[in-house]
Amino acid sequence: MDHSTPLSFETRFFLQAAQVEQLLAELLSSRPREGEIARPETLIAAMRHGALNGGKRLRPFLLLESARLFDAEGPAVLRVAAALECIHCYSLIHDDLPAMDDDDLRRGQPTVHKAFDEATAILAGDSLLTLAFDIIASDETELPATVKVQLISALARAAGVGGMAGGQALDLAAEKVKPDEAEIVQLQAMKTGALIRFACQAGAIIGSATDAERESLTAFGEAIGLAFQLADDLLDVTASAEKVGKATGKDAAAGKGTLVAFHGVEWARQQLNGLVAQAEELLAPFGEKAGVLIETARFVAYREY
Amino acid sequence: MDHSTPLSFETRFFLQAAQVEQLLAELLSSRPREGEIARPETLIAAMRHGALNGGKRLRPFLLLESARLFDAEGPAVLRVAAALECIHCYSLIHDDLPAMDDDDLRRGQPTVHKAFDEATAILAGDSLLTLAFDIIASDETELPATVKVQLISALARAAGVGGMAGGQALDLAAEKVKPDEAEIVQLQAMKTGALIRFACQAGAIIGSATDAERESLTAFGEAIGLAFQLADDLLDVTASAEKVGKATGKDAAAGKGTLVAFHGVEWARQQLNGLVAQAEELLAPFGEKAGVLIETARFVAYREY
Repeated sequence: MDHSTPLSFETRFFLQAAQVEQLLAELLSSRPREGEIARPETLIAAMRHGALNGGKRLRPFLLLESARLFDAEGPAVLRVAAALECIHCYSLIHDDLPAMDDDDLRRGQPTVHKAFDEATAILAGDSLLTLAFDIIASDETELPATVKVQLISALARAAGVGGMAGGQALDLAAEKVKPDEAEIVQLQAMKTGALIRFACQAGAIIGSATDAERESLTAFGEAIGLAFQLADDLLDVTASAEKVGKATGKDAAAGKGTLVAFHGVEWARQQLNGLVAQAEELLAPFGEKAGVLIETARFVAYREY
Repeated sequence: MDHSTPLSFETRFFLQAAQVEQLLAELLSSRPREGEIARPETLIAAMRHGALNGGKRLRPFLLLESARLFDAEGPAVLRVAAALECIHCYSLIHDDLPAMDDDDLRRGQPTVHKAFDEATAILAGDSLLTLAFDIIASDETELPATVKVQLISALARAAGVGGMAGGQALDLAAEKVKPDEAEIVQLQAMKTGALIRFACQAGAIIGSATDAERESLTAFGEAIGLAFQLADDLLDVTASAEKVGKATGKDAAAGKGTLVAFHGVEWARQQLNGLVAQAEELLAPFGEKAGVLIETARFVAYREY
C-alpha cells in the first residue's frame, strides 16, 4: 500500500478487504494445483459461496496491519491473511449447519447448506480449513520455513479443540446448561477471541518482532477479541436485523447467557471504553505507526453492524 | 524398533499400530497445551472415540516403514504418522454422518454422531483435522522447519478439495449420476488414494530422499492405494460383515459403480497381482531393506478384512 497519500480508515479497511477477496477468488479457482488430482466443480462452488461473500475481513485486516507495524507487507503477508480468513469462513459454514446453529441466512444470502446441501457444506468447510494450512505452507508464500511453522502452529492451536472449535462445542453445551459468568468469558475467549488474538500475534510472527512486542500484540489481540464479542452481544440487543445483516435478538430468545445479559447495556458500553483505552496503552510504544490498529480497536468496539 | 531380532510382519504391524494408538491417546489428553485455552471434556471424549478405535493404522505403518527405508525413525516420525492418522480418523467421522454415508457402526462400535451427537461429531472431525497440522508444526516434533513445511503442504493437498475431501464429494455425487470407469478411477484416486500416496511420499520427505527415490515412493504409494481400493471393493462382494467389521454388500445395494462391478472378481484378482508385482519392481533398487514395504503391498492386496 502507498503510504504517501494517507487513506481514511474506512477506505483502507475496504481496500484491503477487496484485496483479500480477490486473492481468495484466485486461490479458490477450479484449476487443480500441483499435488492435487482434480477440484470437483460443485465443491469448489460451495467453497466460493462460503468464502467470497463480501465479509468485513476484519481478521485479515488485523493481521495485515499488525504485520505492517513491523514493516512486513507484500504478497506473502496477504496470503497468510487469506489463509486466516479461510479458517473463519469454514467455521461459519459449519456453525450454520442444521445440527449446529441452524441458520438459513448469512449476510442476506442462503447459507452454504441451503444453497447446496448439508454434505457439501460439511465438505466445503473441511476443505477451507485444509486449504488454510496449504496456503501458508505453499512455496508461493515466500516466507522463511521457520516463520511458516510458527504461524501454522499458532493458527492450529487457535482454531482447534483448545480454541475456536472447542469454543463452539462449549457454546452448544451452553444451550442446555446455562454457563456462569466465568464460563461465558472462557467460551467467548475460545470461540471468537482465539482467532482474533492469532490475527494480531501473526503480524508479530511475520514481522520477526521481539518477545516483548509479540506479547504486546497478543494482549492487544485479546482486548480486540473481548471488544468484538461485547459489541456483538450489544448489537444483538440494540440493533435491527437489517443493519447487522443477520437475525438479532437471537441470544435473548435462546436464553443464551451473554455478559450483556448479566450486566446490562450501560456496563457493556463502559467495558468497551475500557478496552479501547487498554488497546491504546498497549500500542503506545509504537507511536504514530499504531494509529490504524488503534482506529481498528475503536471500529470494533463502536461499530453498528 | 530393535533390528537385531527380526519380527514377523504381523507382529511388526500390530506393534506399530499400538505405538500410534498410544501416542494418539497422549495427544488427545484433556490437558490444554501451550497456546490453547481449555479442552472441553465432551469434545475431547468424542475425538478419542473417533481416533482410539483400534484401527489397523495402515497409513501410519506405511509412513513409518517408508521413512525407515531412508534410515529415519524415532519419536518425530511417529508424531507425523499420528498426525496422518488424525486426518484419516477425521474423514471417517465426517463420512459416517447422516448427511454423508449415514453409518451407525464402525469397527463394531457406534459411530461418533451415534455415541455423541451430530454437532459434536462435526466438531470432533474439525478438531482432529486441525490437530494434525498442529502436531506436525509443534516444537515437540523435532524435524527441520523445511521438512515440516513440505510435509504440511503435501498433506494438505492430499486431504483437501483436490484430494480426499474432493473425492468424498465425487463419491456422494456418484449416488445420483453414475460415473463411468475413468470417473471411478479418479474418484478413488482422490478419496482413498491420495492419503495412502502421501503416507509413502512422507517417508521420503522425512528421510531427505533424492528426487528419484521420492518419485519411486510416490509411485509405490499410488500402487498401494489402487490395491487398497480394489481389495476393499472385492471384500464388499466376497466377505462377510463379521470379518470386515462393517456392513458389506453396500456398494451393490447402493448401485455404486466400482471397478469390480465393471470387470468382475477375476479381473480384480489379476489386477491385484499386477499391482503387487509393480510395487516389488518400484522398490527393487532398495534391495532387502524394502522387504517390509513389499510385504505390506501383499497384505493390502490380499487381506481378508
